[in-house]
This record gives sequence, C-alpha cells and structure tokens, in this order.
Amino acid sequence: MTATIPAGVESARDLTGPAVASAVDRLSPDVRIVASYHLGLTDAEGRPAGRSAPAGKALRPALALLSARAAGAAPERGVPAAAAVEFVHNFSLLHDDIMDGDTERRHRPTAWTVYGVGAAILAGDALLVLAQDLLLENAAPQGLWASRCLSAAVQRLIAGQGADLAFERRDNVTLDECQQMAGDKTAALMACACSIGAIYVGAPAELAMGLAGFGAHVGLAFQLVDDLLGIWGAPEITGKPVRSDLRARKKSLPVVAALTSGTEPGRQLGALLRRTEALTEDDLVRAAALVEDAGGREWAEKAADSALSSAGQCLADTDMPDDVRAEFAGIAEFITARQW
Amino acid sequence: MTATIPAGVESARDLTGPAVASAVDRLSPDVRIVASYHLGLTDAEGRPAGRSAPAGKALRPALALLSARAAGAAPERGVPAAAAVEFVHNFSLLHDDIMDGDTERRHRPTAWTVYGVGAAILAGDALLVLAQDLLLENAAPQGLWASRCLSAAVQRLIAGQGADLAFERRDNVTLDECQQMAGDKTAALMACACSIGAIYVGAPAELAMGLAGFGAHVGLAFQLVDDLLGIWGAPEITGKPVRSDLRARKKSLPVVAALTSGTEPGRQLGALLRRTEALTEDDLVRAAALVEDAGGREWAEKAADSALSSAGQCLADTDMPDDVRAEFAGIAEFITARQW
Repeated sequence: MTATIPAGVESARDLTGPAVASAVDRLSPDVRIVASYHLGLTDAEGRPAGRSAPAGKALRPALALLSARAAGAAPERGVPAAAAVEFVHNFSLLHDDIMDGDTERRHRPTAWTVYGVGAAILAGDALLVLAQDLLLENAAPQGLWASRCLSAAVQRLIAGQGADLAFERRDNVTLDECQQMAGDKTAALMACACSIGAIYVGAPAELAMGLAGFGAHVGLAFQLVDDLLGIWGAPEITGKPVRSDLRARKKSLPVVAALTSGTEPGRQLGALLRRTEALTEDDLVRAAALVEDAGGREWAEKAADSALSSAGQCLADTDMPDDVRAEFAGIAEFITARQW
Repeated sequence: MTATIPAGVESARDLTGPAVASAVDRLSPDVRIVASYHLGLTDAEGRPAGRSAPAGKALRPALALLSARAAGAAPERGVPAAAAVEFVHNFSLLHDDIMDGDTERRHRPTAWTVYGVGAAILAGDALLVLAQDLLLENAAPQGLWASRCLSAAVQRLIAGQGADLAFERRDNVTLDECQQMAGDKTAALMACACSIGAIYVGAPAELAMGLAGFGAHVGLAFQLVDDLLGIWGAPEITGKPVRSDLRARKKSLPVVAALTSGTEPGRQLGALLRRTEALTEDDLVRAAALVEDAGGREWAEKAADSALSSAGQCLADTDMPDDVRAEFAGIAEFITARQW
C-alpha cells in the first residue's frame, strides 16, 4: 500500500478547481470571504492563497469524475457533480469544526476561530445550497437525480453527526450503533462521491448502484483507518496530537469494540474513560494498550480489511473501463493506507 | 389595521401541519427530537406538545397556499411548497438564534440552549435539506422550478444574515446597505413564500412575478415594523424586553436612518452607541428619543407605508381571484400592524 497521492487526484483538482472558485464567487462578499478561506482559496485577509494553498486533497471530486468516466463520459462532464460533492464535504467540515470545538484544520486555524461561529455557520449553509444549485442548473432529469442522491447522502451525514454527538453523553453505545453511525457519517457521502458523476451523466442504475456499493465499503474502511490513526497514528501523519481521540474520549469504532468485548481489559477501559478528571499522558498510554488488549485494534484492522475486500468485489463485479477500475482501486488504497 | 390572526392562517396551519410532522418523522432520532422541539411539535422531553403548542404563526405557509389558489389550484396542491418554506424559515431561526445568542423564542428556551449548539446547527441543516427534498419529490418541472426559487431565496437570506453580522463590527453602515440587507434577510423569503405555491402548481411567470413583487414589498414593510417594535414595542407584544434592539446596539433601519441623517441628534446617537461600557436604562430611553429626534422613526414609518402601498399596487396589478387578493391583503395588514 502506498501513501503517495494518485495522479488522478491532482488532475481532478485542476479540473474541478475553476468550477469551485467561480461558484464561490457568486456568494455575497461577507459569506464568500469565509468560504474562500475555508476552501484554501484565500488567506484570512482574503488574499489569493496560490497553488501552494493548504486546501483539502479533493479526493471526493476525483472519485466523482472517475464515476463519470466509468459511465463512458469525459471527466469534464462530471465537473458540476464533483464540485457539488466537494461543497457538501466542506459544508460538513465547517459545521463539524464548530460542534467538535476543533481549532485547526489543514494546518490552519479553523474558520470559526478566525471569523466567529455565526459566520462559519453561514458559510457552511451557503456551500450546502450552492451544491444543490450546481446540480439543478442542469435542467435534464440527471441533474435532479444527482441532486436527490446528494440530498439523501447529506441527510445521512447529518444523522451520523447527530448520533456521534449523542454518543458523547452515553455509556452504552453498541458496536452496531457505532457502525451505523460511521456508515451515515462517512460512508454515505463517499458512496455518493463514487456514483454521482455517473448519475449526473445519465448512467444506468446498475452502474450507479455498483459504484455506490464500492464507495460505501471504501468509506467504512476509511473511517476505521481514521479511527485507528486517531489512537496509534503519528502526529506528523494525522496533524493532531498523539492519541487525540482517546484524550477526547471519542467513542470511535476500535474503542467501542473494546468496550463491548466482554473482556477484563474492556471493563478496565470503561472504568478509565468514565473517570471525571482529565486523563494524564500515562492514562492515555494505558487506554491505548487496553483497547489493544481487549481486541479493539485487531477487530478494527480486520473490519477495515473486510470492507476493502468487499469494495474490491463491488469494483470487480461492476462493468467499467479497466483504467477507471484501476484508478478507483488506487484511490481506495491511498485513503486506507496504514500509517501506524 | 388589526392584530387578529386572519382565518386563512389558521386553516393553512391545519393543512400544512400534517405534512410538516410527517416530513420531520423522516429525520434520524437524534436530529428529529431537536427539530420537533423547535417547531413546537414536542416539548423538551420529546412529548407531543398538543394543539396549544407555542409554535410559530405559520404565516409563510399561509402565503404559499394562497399563491397556489391565486393560480386557480386547490390549496392542498401547494402543501409541499408551503411546508418547504416553513422548513427554510425554521432552518434560519435555528441558526440565527445561535449566531445572535438569543435564549428565548416563542416564549420557550431556544433549541441551542436546550440541546447544545451542535445539535441545533444539525437540526437547522436537516430542515434545509428536507425543504428541498419535499419540492424535488415532485418530478415534474414545477418541482424543480420551485426548488430553484427557494434556493435563490435561501442564498439571499444567508447573504442578509452575513451582512447583518458584519454590520455589528462596522460604524459606517449606509442606509442603502441596510435596506439591501433587509431585502435579503427578510423580503427574499417572503417574496418566495408569496409565489412558490403558484410556481409549484405551474402558474405562468407573469403571475409568479406579480406575487413575488407583492411579497418583497410586504417583507420590507414587515422588517421596518419589526425594527420599530424593537425600539418602541411593548414587551407583551414583542416577547422581548423593551428597547432590546437598542440594548444590543443593533443597526436596524430606523437606527441607521438616524445615524446617517446628518443631524445633531444623529451624531449624539452615534456617540452613545459607540461607547464601550454597557448602556443603562436611562441611556436606552435617551437613545430611543435621539432616533426619533433624528427622524429615524418617521423615516421608517413612512418607508413602511410606502412599501405597503407598493405591495397593494402589485396585488391590484396581478390577475387572481378577488377572495385570494383580499386574503393576501389581510395577511399583509396583519403582519405590519402597528403596535407601538
């Protein structure tokens, strides 16, 4: 497995970038400055950030353009769908950063810390509406289908984030609930990204379903890997302090697998995380060891393998050009590469 | 002028209520509980609130159903459009209450104070997406037209709220900018409410434009009246402490008219509002008097009259059944009734 960004991701960013920038230009000045900053198009003073900007990796647009190609269309035709998915992803980041109190993203201060909570909420709202606008500007039925596919993904994304917030106040989260949450919060938009380009260019339902299945499995694998990185990932890889998810007592998949394992280390982990006082560095080291001893790490690694294998099966079973299939597989490998 | 709720508003609520409730039922449990509470369908524990619930007056749904009737359709046919407008209105209330730090709405604690900022942001997001879903479930072109009309109104609403937030940090807001802000923040959704039912049932563009013009003028009059109430309205009418807008140093239309009047009272008002310390009750009484002496109150009252008169002209110039025209006029009178 590799951690080098696949070439297709860079070219997708070149293709989608101008559409993203020109759509953002439609926003009113007070909202545009926040959205542009968050997207890495400008710095906090509104000056163009240039090509070296610390923007997102734009993986979802790359997947959306690939899905247009899977349907035999030129990638250019999928650009509105790719930009729409990127806007929805960034809508959720803008709002999630407020909810989670995160102060840094892509090595820059988060938008709400720079412009205030109100302005960041509005910028997220505006990107969500802009996403639908881009799709519905295509008056053909495909624009509507793509829009409804995106809406359904957004409702699941909201459901997943809502469950995640609710989990913070609960001690009895089951592994099933936690997997459902990850499926909603992460996998739904990934499934949408992997199929919306195809839907937007009018692909048959069978292709769209195959691609969405691939995306859902990749999304789940991605979340599992992200959760593992949140415990065992190096700070230089994750951009966050080591064991940050444990410090925040996040009910991530490996943690819930450990807590519900019925093992003695699982019970000890539960007792540790329920303590009211702040966790020391020694506590965090012990918590990570308890997750591992309770089988949470092994469970998550196996679940990630299994999800990736199902994703590969979906890809093999779905009819598309071989080079497109290879690029899909390359991105799946890239975003689930193990760096712990 | 009267302050009695027109009969059509109650019957519109009866017609739209079940559609609103069943759409909210689609949301995931953690999000639904917040949305239901905010809409007045349930109390803070999730128990049904009953008919005596302190929900909103549902004026916008009433306008949407009227606009379907203006196009010669049964009001029932406009229900998805009416529910969509109501959801967008409530999306904006949920988010605005966070941004403005408001702790009470409709005589109940605001959603963010009960469930937290994160949950309230998500509930607003969910209602926004739900609004578009309701419209796009109608695969006929009218569903798409209505959806794009709503999207355009939401982008203006966001632009207006963004400008309003930006005004808080500026001392040089012009009256033009302030009117533009009110047009975006309030009038755009009112224009949409007054025309979306007609658009949704396939009315000709001329009718839709006439109704939207009526709604835009009514919306501006409504904002002017609301701003006047924010200074001179009795607490039992506004549900807020007396002179609350002055206490919050809000750059409302009468205040900006006074500040930009070039008069001595206007200059004194500016000096008073720029003071860093909190304003005493005596300061607030003096500020209200200065707005009046600088001509801000008279300007706003005349501007409201003028907007209402333009609204009436739009109504007279637009072809629709007489009883529908009379009901539109009744709602316009109701929401701009002077109670100060």
